[in-house]
Amino acid sequence: MSKINVVGIGPGAYEQMTGRAIRALKESDEIIGYTVYVDLVKEYFPDKEFRTTPMKKEEDRCVLAFEEARKGKNVSMICSGDAGVYGMAGLMYQVGEKYPEVELTVIPGVTAATGGAAVLGAPLIHDFCLISLSDLLTPWEKIEARLLAAAQADFVICLYNPSSRKRSDYLQKACDLILTHRSPDTVCGTVARIAREGEEARVLTLGELRNAQVDMFTTVFIGNSQTREIGGKMVTPRGYESER
Amino acid sequence: MSKINVVGIGPGAYEQMTGRAIRALKESDEIIGYTVYVDLVKEYFPDKEFRTTPMKKEEDRCVLAFEEARKGKNVSMICSGDAGVYGMAGLMYQVGEKYPEVELTVIPGVTAATGGAAVLGAPLIHDFCLISLSDLLTPWEKIEARLLAAAQADFVICLYNPSSRKRSDYLQKACDLILTHRSPDTVCGTVARIAREGEEARVLTLGELRNAQVDMFTTVFIGNSQTREIGGKMVTPRGYESER
Repeated sequence: MSKINVVGIGPGAYEQMTGRAIRALKESDEIIGYTVYVDLVKEYFPDKEFRTTPMKKEEDRCVLAFEEARKGKNVSMICSGDAGVYGMAGLMYQVGEKYPEVELTVIPGVTAATGGAAVLGAPLIHDFCLISLSDLLTPWEKIEARLLAAAQADFVICLYNPSSRKRSDYLQKACDLILTHRSPDTVCGTVARIAREGEEARVLTLGELRNAQVDMFTTVFIGNSQTREIGGKMVTPRGYESER
Repeated sequence: MSKINVVGIGPGAYEQMTGRAIRALKESDEIIGYTVYVDLVKEYFPDKEFRTTPMKKEEDRCVLAFEEARKGKNVSMICSGDAGVYGMAGLMYQVGEKYPEVELTVIPGVTAATGGAAVLGAPLIHDFCLISLSDLLTPWEKIEARLLAAAQADFVICLYNPSSRKRSDYLQKACDLILTHRSPDTVCGTVARIAREGEEARVLTLGELRNAQVDMFTTVFIGNSQTREIGGKMVTPRGYESER
């Protein structure tokens, strides 16, 4: 049976990949991904064949992976972070309905939420939500409803895709919605280029975040009512529940 | 300056640790953790000194780490999954306020949400919430409010700590709340002992989940209105937004 691994390579640095992800790539004949991610790993796997497809050609990329696997090649599809969090794993299963002879395995990785949280301190410690501000495939009304629900129920909120050229005011809009339920003094954080060159973290208030400029390589964290700044770090305190 | 690494070791298998986590443990003089986690990694680091404290002694464990670091030892505090998701990172920063001379570094790992998601297929692909059902340190009313908000705003929901001996009916209570906003046919999944011996995954409906028995080593996934079963896997479909 042909096999494809859908591999989360983590936030960027080679060292942030898991041993399992590295083994999957080593055992591949061919590694497929978006150009930026392929460039991140290429040097570590010099003997592999790499194939890239440009942004917004995700479905073509999936079809390419299945067609290559059908030729008998051991294929890995790579994603930054975790392939199952705003990544390619879902689309691979959907496209895979036409290729029942190909077996998919998802190999998890460190997603930007936890990778960025580690840089900021411990913002996510308790219940949290991930929300993408991209409305390319989600109606903005649904995003708004989620922001409001998350703010009202006092979740820590982690925002993916907080900005792009076409959506330069979306973070401001999101902050305004959250401010209807949360104080402008709420402790927030941003991390740009997690685990890559130029990594940059900032702890700031929700009021300051509303007026901040962030780019598309930034992950945003909005604390809950308990989140504090401790020595420059963003920390969501709690007691500590019984471990499992 | 003394240093402590707070290290997420991932769901359990050595291969699911990141390279950075392995390096941190290799460079440690002493590795501290809850007994179960220490047992998971001990064999791979035979020359290290290991210290454990029992369940519910988390604060003592933090103090031990800081006291050892103050003696000049290179200390790692280990957590399963990611140290920043229901892990020790937050408490370490809180206890660390008394030890300003010790520098903390959090090293992220694969948390049960993404590790379990990879086993089930691609349930989390889009916006999702993590909610712990443990009410040891969170009032149950707050947990209820979060479950209702998450259900109403159509988040995928991932439940940590779904059960314990004292809380055997909490998952049922949670499902009943979610059922006020979501169909009993909603696709759900459970994964027990992720990446450990006896790993066990199941895809089922929300109606079935309500009546299922799960143990404390299980992570529960409740799909959103779009989540489907594809070839026995739990998949949250979406188109695919512009990659970052």
